Amino acid sequence: MKSLTEYLTFNLPARMAFENITPKVEEIVKRSGVKEGLCLINAMHITASVFINDDEPGLHDDYKRWLEKLAPFDESPQTYRHNRTGEDNADAHMKRQVMGREVVVAITNGNLDFGPWEQIFYGEFDGRRAKRVLVKVIGE
Amino acid sequence: MKSLTEYLTFNLPARMAFENITPKVEEIVKRSGVKEGLCLINAMHITASVFINDDEPGLHDDYKRWLEKLAPFDESPQTYRHNRTGEDNADAHMKRQVMGREVVVAITNGNLDFGPWEQIFYGEFDGRRAKRVLVKVIGE
Amino acid sequence: MKSLTEYLTFNLPARMAFENITPKVEEIVKRSGVKEGLCLINAMHITASVFINDDEPGLHDDYKRWLEKLAPFDESPQTYRHNRTGEDNADAHMKRQVMGREVVVAITNGNLDFGPWEQIFYGEFDGRRAKRVLVKVIGE
Repeated sequence: MKSLTEYLTFNLPARMAFENITPKVEEIVKRSGVKEGLCLINAMHITASVFINDDEPGLHDDYKRWLEKLAPFDESPQTYRHNRTGEDNADAHMKRQVMGREVVVAITNGNLDFGPWEQIFYGEFDGRRAKRVLVKVIGE
Repeated sequence: MKSLTEYLTFNLPARMAFENITPKVEEIVKRSGVKEGLCLINAMHITASVFINDDEPGLHDDYKRWLEKLAPFDESPQTYRHNRTGEDNADAHMKRQVMGREVVVAITNGNLDFGPWEQIFYGEFDGRRAKRVLVKVIGE
Repeated sequence: MKSLTEYLTFNLPARMAFENITPKVEEIVKRSGVKEGLCLINAMHITASVFINDDEPGLHDDYKRWLEKLAPFDESPQTYRHNRTGEDNADAHMKRQVMGREVVVAITNGNLDFGPWEQIFYGEFDGRRAKRVLVKVIGE
């Protein structure tokens, strides 16, 4: 069994933002030499996501407005008890649960085995600081 | 390490629908010969889900009404900017995030290692056309 | 390829509750002898979750109130058709979809490869009875 572990760092300038990380993951899969296996890609921070969807800016705007409706930003410790700790990011912990922590992608014939529109995104819900994503490839 | 990759195709006649795919996945696991390992099952389309829950028609009705409330269908490009592209399925991209893209199931003694009520479903949120599900088995 | 499968049992006294299971998972990973691989941790019941987030009691209160708003408990079979079966836990099946069934964690150098605040939780949405969590380690 082969394995390769890499860490990607992102520092997005907005509170909420999505970045397409597919080319970076593809490069790691190539470098691993794994032909048949699995690739785990996960946010290492708990106010961020890794998810798979469409690379379409209108959809990303829709996601932002929808997540803001499901779990609105509110720094008040009356609204969110988590913010009694001095944090203001309780909403980000909720948005991340909707969008997910991780994806697991099949590697087939040395490539990410994707449908026609699948792209991997880093989802940031409390940005303006450096955060890491783990990429782990296992297989043969 | 052994591996097996299969693709299942679904063409559900409704916009939103759930289909139990457990027997199809079980058959692939048997055929793989893997006794100890992992099985990844993921939607290859970004307006569809694979998830695990109960095979109970009342619950599936509840899911449909609940998802419609969380992310209502609305073809208007004023409501969803994604629909400015000519699509009408922005809501389906949101429903899919709530229900998830994929599941990873343990294989133990050659079987899907399931609790008493776990069943695997294909979840369709923009149906009436063919879409694929990937099943990847790895292990020994 | 090495593998190890273990089952943890939880019987939480509240309807909705979160328990940090990280030390139990770490112990299983150590015992597996796997240095490089993947660890799957999943709820085996369909009204429970396994998820990764912060071990902060204020945040857990926020999650409970937020989930109750997204999918309110209501035993009425008029509100939820699933409750026509004699169950009263339709809401728990929805809360579990938001929080997720499973997590997959990288094992690197024999340890769970975690960011600074990542902790694994068992999430219960219909408690007061015994339920199981599966932990499967594969790798070398």
